[in-house]
Amino acid sequence: MTEQKATNIVWHAGAVTRADRERLNGHRGATVWLTGLSGSGKSTIAVELEKRLWDRGVRAYILDGDNIRHGLNKNLGFSPADRTENIRRIGEVAKLFTEAGMVALTAFISPYRADRDQVRALMPDDFVEVFVDCPVEVCEQRDVKGLYKKARAGEIKEFTGVSAPYEPPQKPELTVHSDRQSVEESVRQVLGYLERRGIAPPA
Amino acid sequence: MTEQKATNIVWHAGAVTRADRERLNGHRGATVWLTGLSGSGKSTIAVELEKRLWDRGVRAYILDGDNIRHGLNKNLGFSPADRTENIRRIGEVAKLFTEAGMVALTAFISPYRADRDQVRALMPDDFVEVFVDCPVEVCEQRDVKGLYKKARAGEIKEFTGVSAPYEPPQKPELTVHSDRQSVEESVRQVLGYLERRGIAPPA
Repeated sequence: MTEQKATNIVWHAGAVTRADRERLNGHRGATVWLTGLSGSGKSTIAVELEKRLWDRGVRAYILDGDNIRHGLNKNLGFSPADRTENIRRIGEVAKLFTEAGMVALTAFISPYRADRDQVRALMPDDFVEVFVDCPVEVCEQRDVKGLYKKARAGEIKEFTGVSAPYEPPQKPELTVHSDRQSVEESVRQVLGYLERRGIAPPA
Repeated sequence: MTEQKATNIVWHAGAVTRADRERLNGHRGATVWLTGLSGSGKSTIAVELEKRLWDRGVRAYILDGDNIRHGLNKNLGFSPADRTENIRRIGEVAKLFTEAGMVALTAFISPYRADRDQVRALMPDDFVEVFVDCPVEVCEQRDVKGLYKKARAGEIKEFTGVSAPYEPPQKPELTVHSDRQSVEESVRQVLGYLERRGIAPPA
């Protein structure tokens, strides 16, 4: 638990409710949390998913390691403590987007189960955990960004799957097997789930 | 400047552009940054503004000391360094909302000019600084939350306007004088400005 340092603060209820937001947008707010190894395909799936949701009028927005690490979390590294704080902040931002009526798509390795579960606890009814399951050998073979090679050479320390642990989800809402499913199949699987949950309208 | 600790990261361009978002929503994304003393009326104006924007179909969302301090920034206190980090994080989140096509309304004392200017630098074309100008004597007389009383008694340290500085904006986009304008007048003034800037459609 993070210590609550800020005191003398009172919760303000805004006049525009979440129901108002969802009525205007025509869809629910939610967080779709993609977790998996580097190179498992999280960002690729997120980008395609965002496009497909947008085509249906669903206001989706991707938070990913790239845009968050250059901005909000640029003062965090990759130590265990920094990874935990990284995920905590992203979870809080995803919650704000969800409350604002949007569908946040997050694409982070997020290797620690406890960190992901803390995000889930922030918004249990709105949190969709998607495990992008892909064996490390396959990710390493792809190595799109050349990071595994650097990690094996010791040029990157604390690299998930090589020199830092990945704890797979035990009860994710969904698992996509990105080593044997196409991006299209994975995206369709997630969209189908979001339809059943009433988060995305049918195509 | 905050040190860039995160390395090995590449910027990903999502397939949904900001123009796509703005087309679907029918309005621009922007950040309306309210700054002023505690009790100057920032949150009151923000709540009314959000309602009025929403009535016009503008997807506005309030970030304020209350909801942010209980979540994203609950591990920050009120020291100068923590205040700076508080505003930095809020600025980054407001930028994400802006890029997502929403209108972020922020209601924070944000006492340091340099901190606000750093947020402006993140999104110079989308940043609307609104100085909610109200003499400290008036704020203290109102003292809705009883904070000035506590600050004078020394029960709250580093309280802006009493024991910590407030640096007013030098060139804000707007100044509202909340000691002599009604909330309605202030809100109408901001709405008029947002109309002229093409951020809000006419009523």
